[in-house]
Amino acid sequence: MVFWKKLFTANTENVATSEATEFNGEVLKLNGSATTAETEIVFSTDRDIDLYELEELCDLVGWARRPLRKVKKAIQHSFLVVSMWEIKGKRRRLIGFARATSDHAFNATIWDVVVDPRYQNRGLGKAMMKYTIQKLRSADISNITLFADPQVVDFYRRLGFMVDPEGIKGMFWYPD
Amino acid sequence: MVFWKKLFTANTENVATSEATEFNGEVLKLNGSATTAETEIVFSTDRDIDLYELEELCDLVGWARRPLRKVKKAIQHSFLVVSMWEIKGKRRRLIGFARATSDHAFNATIWDVVVDPRYQNRGLGKAMMKYTIQKLRSADISNITLFADPQVVDFYRRLGFMVDPEGIKGMFWYPD
Ligand SMILES: CC(C)(COP(=O)(O)OP(=O)(O)OC[C@H]1O[C@@H](n2cnc3c(N)ncnc32)[C@H](O)[C@@H]1OP(=O)(O)O)[C@@H](O)C(=O)NCCC(=O)NCCS
Ligand SMILES: CC(C)(COP(=O)(O)OP(=O)(O)OC[C@H]1O[C@@H](n2cnc3c(N)ncnc32)[C@H](O)[C@@H]1OP(=O)(O)O)[C@@H](O)C(=O)NCCC(=O)NCCS
Repeated sequence: MVFWKKLFTANTENVATSEATEFNGEVLKLNGSATTAETEIVFSTDRDIDLYELEELCDLVGWARRPLRKVKKAIQHSFLVVSMWEIKGKRRRLIGFARATSDHAFNATIWDVVVDPRYQNRGLGKAMMKYTIQKLRSADISNITLFADPQVVDFYRRLGFMVDPEGIKGMFWYPD
Repeated sequence: MVFWKKLFTANTENVATSEATEFNGEVLKLNGSATTAETEIVFSTDRDIDLYELEELCDLVGWARRPLRKVKKAIQHSFLVVSMWEIKGKRRRLIGFARATSDHAFNATIWDVVVDPRYQNRGLGKAMMKYTIQKLRSADISNITLFADPQVVDFYRRLGFMVDPEGIKGMFWYPD
């Protein structure tokens, strides 16, 4: 069973990256398995993410590098930005990320879902996606879509995503 | 052959709908076939669209009605809103529509593509999609996506859209 509780919005000291002194997030409890007294997994929708830390995370799963200027713009203009952190005492580490574009009304499209390989296969990707879906649902978005690489179709299927419902086809246009 | 020229940004008198006195758009020339001396087909990215007129257009192709409050919000928060108009003297009529969500950097997703049935099968849908793609490309978006109903997959294919490239699958999540 997975559940969240609201994290204290109090000041949490921040070591890992920037000069930020606040950290707003929600704590994940994974039946005690993923968390110990000193370690917590925390989700956040704060978009103030260190771009180098995010790039490192994407490097870990072998994604092609993208200009940070464009990544910054994409984060700014995403409707929802979800990050997953491991908090150990005063240290925090970015271990997961996802974001969604949206028209703020009917539909959202989820992009860039990633979990640090050292933290994969523990239910954290699933928990992060559930958190993402919950956030989109609470914004009254009913049509949540994504484009899944073939090797992760089943990961999303387990979360309730359907491939080509009623024959609707995902289509792509790339410049020549 | 289809080409556009920039429309005068001068005041064009506006009859059909609102009190707007300017109409910025681009004129479509369809080898003289769709346009006559008195009739022009014009594209616009202006998002000041009469919601009742848009609802009428969507009614014509049998789409389920949606709360206008939400349609308004979706238009506001779309990255690109394209409308197609028939201009006859002082009258203008909304005959086509499309919009796209985007992260303003990497990807865009096109939604709600519609052409008035009385104007279909004349190349206007294709011209409107080309205009939409051109606008997204000029904003440096390279990954243009959409979810096509089965009966229009070939319409998009002719425009260069590919189904499931490299096995990427469009997936949907709906609330229970
Ligand atoms: C896909 C990804 C986010 C999954 O994260 P994760 O933390 O390992 O996933 P979880 O441990 O929460 O797995 C949840 C469930 O999905 C299953 N699952 C995980 N990855 C899967 C995969 N690639 N294919 C099929 N099932 C998968 C798990 O077995 C688990 O099943 P269960 O609920 O029956 O126990 C992670 O593997 C990743 O970052 N991959 C690289 C980047 C990527 O490909 N992103 C997607 C781009 S579209
Ligand atoms: C889909 C739609 C926008 C096409 O508009 P249109 O103005 O009729 O299309 P065009 O005349 O520009 O057609 C361009 C080309 O696509 C072809 N085409 C048009 N509709 C097609 C369809 N449904 N299936 C296959 N090919 C189609 C035309 O034959 C033409 O081919 P050509 O370039 O070889 O001559 C219009 O039919 C429509 O509004 N449909 C209802 C709403 C809808 O289903 N929208 C899409 C939701 S995903």
